[in-house]
Amino acid sequence: MADLERPLLVTSLTNIRYLTGFTGSNAYLYVQPDRATFLTDGRYGEIAEELLADLDQTVLSVYRRGLYDAIAELFDGSKSVDLEVEHLSWKEKRALAQRFAGDLLPCSGIVESYRSVKDEEEAEALSAAAAAGDRAFSMLTELAERSETELELAENLIEAMMQHGGRRAGWPPIVAMGANAARPHHLSAMDRLEGGLLLLDYGCVVEGYHSDMSRTVSWLPITDEEVNRVYSAVLEANKAGIAAVASGVVAGDIDLAAREVLVTHGYEEYFLHSTGHGVGLDIHEAPSVSKESRDILQVGNVVTIEPGVYLPGRFGVRIEDMVLVTEDGGEVLTKSHRDMLLR
Amino acid sequence: MADLERPLLVTSLTNIRYLTGFTGSNAYLYVQPDRATFLTDGRYGEIAEELLADLDQTVLSVYRRGLYDAIAELFDGSKSVDLEVEHLSWKEKRALAQRFAGDLLPCSGIVESYRSVKDEEEAEALSAAAAAGDRAFSMLTELAERSETELELAENLIEAMMQHGGRRAGWPPIVAMGANAARPHHLSAMDRLEGGLLLLDYGCVVEGYHSDMSRTVSWLPITDEEVNRVYSAVLEANKAGIAAVASGVVAGDIDLAAREVLVTHGYEEYFLHSTGHGVGLDIHEAPSVSKESRDILQVGNVVTIEPGVYLPGRFGVRIEDMVLVTEDGGEVLTKSHRDMLLR
Repeated sequence: MADLERPLLVTSLTNIRYLTGFTGSNAYLYVQPDRATFLTDGRYGEIAEELLADLDQTVLSVYRRGLYDAIAELFDGSKSVDLEVEHLSWKEKRALAQRFAGDLLPCSGIVESYRSVKDEEEAEALSAAAAAGDRAFSMLTELAERSETELELAENLIEAMMQHGGRRAGWPPIVAMGANAARPHHLSAMDRLEGGLLLLDYGCVVEGYHSDMSRTVSWLPITDEEVNRVYSAVLEANKAGIAAVASGVVAGDIDLAAREVLVTHGYEEYFLHSTGHGVGLDIHEAPSVSKESRDILQVGNVVTIEPGVYLPGRFGVRIEDMVLVTEDGGEVLTKSHRDMLLR
Repeated sequence: MADLERPLLVTSLTNIRYLTGFTGSNAYLYVQPDRATFLTDGRYGEIAEELLADLDQTVLSVYRRGLYDAIAELFDGSKSVDLEVEHLSWKEKRALAQRFAGDLLPCSGIVESYRSVKDEEEAEALSAAAAAGDRAFSMLTELAERSETELELAENLIEAMMQHGGRRAGWPPIVAMGANAARPHHLSAMDRLEGGLLLLDYGCVVEGYHSDMSRTVSWLPITDEEVNRVYSAVLEANKAGIAAVASGVVAGDIDLAAREVLVTHGYEEYFLHSTGHGVGLDIHEAPSVSKESRDILQVGNVVTIEPGVYLPGRFGVRIEDMVLVTEDGGEVLTKSHRDMLLR
C-alpha cells in the first residue's frame, strides 16, 4: 500500500487475511510506507512465519506477554498512526493511547477499498461459491421432499452446497414459509414445510469468499392476487437494480433504480432494507448499495441486488442476485431462474 | 440486572442474546435500573416483538434511519451511561460522544459475569455439545478410514457431531498430523493422513452453547521416547488442572497447577498458551484460566483445561477437557478416554 500517508495499524482480521492470507484468530499488522510488521502470539508463530515468507518486506513479531505494550513498541519513532476506527474496540484505543505519546487518528475503509475490487482469482472464488448455491437451488424439490421442517431444509441446502464445492455455509440459511417470510431475517425453526410461498436466503464460502442469493418460490400456482402483484414488482425491481449496475455509477442510484419500481407499485413502505451490499471475504462489505451510498462502482466490485417486500403477518418476497461489475456493465454470478413457480 | 449503578448500553450481540434470546445481527439493548429498550432495524422488528413479549419491562424501538441518533435519543435524561468498552468500536464511541452531552463511561464484564455462571439449562446444552464431540471421537477410527486428508477428517468430524445433536461446528476443526501439530492452531489442509501422532481440537454448538475438546492420538504405538515423555507430562498437567478446579479457587492457580507439572518435566517453554478459558455462548469467555487471571471460580462456571507442549518441527500434544464447577469440585463434561493409543 504505497499510498499511505502515515503508518496504519490493521486490526480487522479480515483485512489481515486479505493482505497476508492469515486465517487465525489473533493478529495485528502494522503497515509503514516501506515495510510491515505482523504481530501475533505463540500459537500462530510457525504458521505466520510460513505465510510471511511469500510477502515482501514484512517481518514477524511474536509477543509473549503484554499485547498493548508490544503494539506500542511498534509505534516507536512514529509521530502519528492511523487506526481502523470500525475495527478497533474502544478498549484497544484506550490501551494504546495510554502507551503512545503520538497521535492516534481514526481512519476508515483503507484496506476495504482495495478489497472491494476483486481480481480474477477472487472473482473465480465468488463465482464458484455462487455456483454451489445455484446447484443447491436446482435440487430444491428433491431437498424439500426429504425435509419435514424449515430447519431440515436449511440443513439440506447446506449439505447440497458442500457437495458442490462450498467449504461451509456463510450463515444459517433463511428458510421462511408463508407469514414467516414477512420477517426479512426469519430464523428457520421447526415449523413444518407446507404448500405456499417459501423464501430462501442462503450462501456458502469458497476460499474464504461468500456467495449470497435469495429466491421466493412455490410448487403450486398461488391464487392470492396480491402475492402475484408483489412478486412481479420485486422481480421488476431486481431487474432494474441489476440493469443499473455499471462502472462509474453511484451506488445510491442503483438502490434508487430498484426502489422506484417499488414506489411505482405502492410497496416501498414494505421494503425494509437497502437494495444490496458488496460481498467478498465478508458477507457485507464495500460498496454499500443503499439510498445514502456515495460509493462509485468500479470494475471488479461484486454487489448483491436484493429488493424485498414484506407484508406483516401475511408473506414476504425477496429476490437476490450477485453481480460482478465488468467493463460492459454487470455480470450476474447467480444463475438460478427467477420464476416464482418451481418446475 | 438490579445492581446497575447507571444505565448500560449493551452492544455485544452475544450479551444481547443471553439477555433476550435474540440471535440476529443488529441490535442494541439499553438497560436502565427499572426497564430496558431493545433497539433494532426493520428487518428484525417482528422477531424482536415476539421475543420481548416474554420479557419484563422491556420495550421495542425500531429505527428507520440514523442508528446513532436513535441510540443517543435513548440516553436522553441520563447524566452518564456505561458502555461495553470491549464490544464497542472506537467509531461507535465517537459517534455517541458527538450526540450525547453526558458522560460515556467504559465498563467491562457486567453481563459477562452473569454469563459465566451457567444455570441448569445452559449446563445441559454444554453437556449435550460435549457429548456430540465425544460421540465423534468414539467414531474416530471409522471417520479416519474414510478420510484421505486432514481436511476430510475435519469435515467428517463435523458430520459426526451433527449426527449426534450438534447444530454446527464451533470452528473448522484442527486436525494436525506429526509436525503440523507443533503449531497449536494448525489449519487443516490437504496433507494426507499417515501414521504417527494426530492432534484433534474441535467442538460444536447446541442451542448456541459451545463444546471444546482436544485429543492427541495414534493408532500404533509410538517408538519415539520423547513423544511418550511429552504425552505423559501433558496428561499429568491436564489431570492436575482438572483436580485443581473447585468453587472459590483463583483461576490463575489452576493455570499454575497445570503449568508446574510441565515445569517439572522441563517442557514449560514449549507450552505456548494459557491452560484454559471459560466456554459458553462464546468459545472463549469468562473466567480466564491464565497465569495472570484473578477470576475466582464459582459453581456454574464451565472452563477448559488444555495444557499442550509443542516441539517446533517435530510434534505437538494437547489434551483438553471441559469442566463444570460444582459444589463438590469439578465435573468433567467431555468423557472421551485420554489414552494416546487408540483401541
